[in-house]
Amino acid sequence: MAKFRFRIRYFLLLLTAAATASSFKVPRLSIYDPRHHLAGGQTSTLTAAMEGFESHFYNQTLDHFNYLPESYVTFRQRYFANSKHWGGPGAPIFVYLGAEAAFPHNFSGGKSFLIEIAPSFNALLVYIEHRYYGESIPFGSSEEAFSNSSMLGYMNSQQAIADYAEIIFHIKEQSNAGDSPVIVVGESYGGMLAAWFRLKYPHLAIGALASSAPILYFDDITPQDAYFNVVTKDFRDASETCYLTIKKSWAEIDEMASKPDGLSMLSQKFKTCVPLKNSTSLTDELEDLYASAAQYNAPPSYPVTQICTAIDGFGPNNDTLGRIFAGVVAYYGEKPCYINEPTQPSETDGGWDWQTCSEMVIPIGFGNDTMFGSDKAFNLTKFSDDCRARYGVSPRPHWVTTYYGGHSIKRILKRFGSNIIFSNGLKDPYSTGGVLENISDSIHAIYTTNGSHCLDLSASNVTDPEWLTAQREEEIHIVHGWLTTYYKDLQVI
Amino acid sequence: MAKFRFRIRYFLLLLTAAATASSFKVPRLSIYDPRHHLAGGQTSTLTAAMEGFESHFYNQTLDHFNYLPESYVTFRQRYFANSKHWGGPGAPIFVYLGAEAAFPHNFSGGKSFLIEIAPSFNALLVYIEHRYYGESIPFGSSEEAFSNSSMLGYMNSQQAIADYAEIIFHIKEQSNAGDSPVIVVGESYGGMLAAWFRLKYPHLAIGALASSAPILYFDDITPQDAYFNVVTKDFRDASETCYLTIKKSWAEIDEMASKPDGLSMLSQKFKTCVPLKNSTSLTDELEDLYASAAQYNAPPSYPVTQICTAIDGFGPNNDTLGRIFAGVVAYYGEKPCYINEPTQPSETDGGWDWQTCSEMVIPIGFGNDTMFGSDKAFNLTKFSDDCRARYGVSPRPHWVTTYYGGHSIKRILKRFGSNIIFSNGLKDPYSTGGVLENISDSIHAIYTTNGSHCLDLSASNVTDPEWLTAQREEEIHIVHGWLTTYYKDLQVI
Repeated sequence: MAKFRFRIRYFLLLLTAAATASSFKVPRLSIYDPRHHLAGGQTSTLTAAMEGFESHFYNQTLDHFNYLPESYVTFRQRYFANSKHWGGPGAPIFVYLGAEAAFPHNFSGGKSFLIEIAPSFNALLVYIEHRYYGESIPFGSSEEAFSNSSMLGYMNSQQAIADYAEIIFHIKEQSNAGDSPVIVVGESYGGMLAAWFRLKYPHLAIGALASSAPILYFDDITPQDAYFNVVTKDFRDASETCYLTIKKSWAEIDEMASKPDGLSMLSQKFKTCVPLKNSTSLTDELEDLYASAAQYNAPPSYPVTQICTAIDGFGPNNDTLGRIFAGVVAYYGEKPCYINEPTQPSETDGGWDWQTCSEMVIPIGFGNDTMFGSDKAFNLTKFSDDCRARYGVSPRPHWVTTYYGGHSIKRILKRFGSNIIFSNGLKDPYSTGGVLENISDSIHAIYTTNGSHCLDLSASNVTDPEWLTAQREEEIHIVHGWLTTYYKDLQVI
Repeated sequence: MAKFRFRIRYFLLLLTAAATASSFKVPRLSIYDPRHHLAGGQTSTLTAAMEGFESHFYNQTLDHFNYLPESYVTFRQRYFANSKHWGGPGAPIFVYLGAEAAFPHNFSGGKSFLIEIAPSFNALLVYIEHRYYGESIPFGSSEEAFSNSSMLGYMNSQQAIADYAEIIFHIKEQSNAGDSPVIVVGESYGGMLAAWFRLKYPHLAIGALASSAPILYFDDITPQDAYFNVVTKDFRDASETCYLTIKKSWAEIDEMASKPDGLSMLSQKFKTCVPLKNSTSLTDELEDLYASAAQYNAPPSYPVTQICTAIDGFGPNNDTLGRIFAGVVAYYGEKPCYINEPTQPSETDGGWDWQTCSEMVIPIGFGNDTMFGSDKAFNLTKFSDDCRARYGVSPRPHWVTTYYGGHSIKRILKRFGSNIIFSNGLKDPYSTGGVLENISDSIHAIYTTNGSHCLDLSASNVTDPEWLTAQREEEIHIVHGWLTTYYKDLQVI
């Protein structure tokens, strides 16, 4: 594993360097803030047990879309099934589509949400892990699979949803469940996969629930500064003084950094784990922190509010950097040190880096009208150069919109397709790339003003605000409607 | 070219050998009977000039679905465009999707049909050649491209329609025609591509006209004997005595072949170009001939009728083989010799052989209840073994239905998708794998009882029967409706 980790870390370092130069690192499209226990903390206490789930492995085809001899190689792809509440052949199947992470040893997020609702639907639950993550690794090992673009090249969304198609086909056949309606469910990147799966494989899934799926954050459909505009708005909504403090902090950091011994003073001020070599590693981490807090700004803890309460409440008005640090502490909790903490890059880091550098080109940047420092516009040329330097192949930034569409989506899908729920919370900066308007009678946009990334599919909790419960109930109601219609059709067609 | 032809011929010989053993060679899925001037003869006189068409080349990506370095290689893909009648940006674009043949130096079939109707639609015409055919060859040459499965592996329908997606995107961008509605049109295998394109790329084509597209002749959706049952019915409908003569001819051929000097007698009787080495080469060719006559049984010549008229009209009742030969002569016209004619296998032969041996596994066979000889059931195991022996890779017989669907199509597409016309003629044995029932308000099945393969999209002719004109008019009317709705939507969405 050491070798693999080294490689990934090497990529990450390069990515950070590249990002520093001209663009912001694309915020993670995962369900929870991987860095922090507070953001999305509600759900971490609600991870459902894996009771009743059995793991299976399917011999998956390496490349579904060509007939070269090497494409026939198979790998073991993992999925979990739970038939505890299943009504048997004909009864619904809920398929959770894995995204850029291994399935954990307990289930959280949408996986536990599905466990909650399965009994009332008599549903079979199936969770399929995404290729190249967890135990679903081609080429025998992660080291090998992640070693270069000739190995990584098979990791993309088209191959992933084709995997899901094969496994769903297989499960229906194995379980004699040809007539069972399948609903696919996904969150974040997995939500995009769910929506796209319904569009590409309507014969295998009668509907999709796509939570926080920014399928419109490609090409120029969504303005590149939309993400950080929402981050800014979230902080400003929480507290105008907090927003102003953050806004002016960048110049103060730069000013202190430019002094003799300034970096050392900054390192002390922010209790960095390793002395700062430049101010960028500090500002990058602060940008990341604010973005994550906004994206995963879930009740009951609401990290944005926590940060702002700490910033506003600390010391005298003019101790900007002291206030900023108080925000950091509020976010991470008490720790021996904060910034520049040595970390082991995860499989998700490495995998998602590759995916954003090949297919998932999500152009996020910002100008000068946010609470952040200087302009960090997304520069496609620079981005592509960096990716080419790291992986030896170029991103295909227009392929997602060519294959899946996105431009004029309302006009296109008004008369094509059906049975998709796009759910969002508007506090989530990624919601700006989501579908926020109903498209037709059966392609729904369901959002909450105060919701965050994938909040609706977190497990329910007694502390849940009413608007969140209402969002979930509406989603369940719509899925019920799809099933009712399906069974009616089944009797006559 | 010599080397290439040798290879292809080698494949063909193997295919024939394999077919002889246990299954019928899958009838060609092309627009016209490539063997014969009579079948589809009407259209051969109506090939439209290429006036106004300009050829272009697009640098096409070799593999759209993975990010291996070698997939980025491009090849020059040819397309033709004619803007003579185009109303400019916003006006419709008709895109003819190429199938398993080079585009000829004049246009026929659906290509000339589109030339006829373009003026009334103010439509831009675009004809895109299919990868691996004509001048759209990867790897620099046909020799190279067809040399083995590592080269051929990139030839399949998913890559082909992805090519079309890229070119349509490119043309719309180049012509500032983002709002121009695209209608894709195809015939036979190209008709399948058109229907599938509309289903997979609804954002790039607002509708599809799919002529004689047997999208349901995969897996076990259509019974494998459906094709030859229709061939049999076509002959029986033309003449009961003709049908009976053909039905009893196989035993007589076998009987004669089993006599000393019998093959020599058969060779004389059928004026074979090369002496027969076994009776199978004769019976295979007769089977082929009857199948083609039925598939391409177009007015005004109606080859099935011509064959039956000759069979019924020749000599005494009991000269079965004389009658059969008279049918052969009626079909081919006067020639120096008939059976076992040395031929140069075409690019289409080689290409389609590969396609049917990898992705387009169309299980056609027959039992004992046709007018043909002994049972030739389609045996998937044997078929796969033969393909593996020839190309080194196995067919994926379930992939078409996994990727495109097909099972329970009416239930699936009743509430998903829109704007497809499936047109058929029921005399065409491939119509048994077509969509012959309306699926929804905008997914239409339009067939004629007496039509043949792709007849509706042949150029119009003064001799056209009324039912054929009516079929075309209905199609045009429906397309007009799609466009009207599209432009209405465009004003408000």
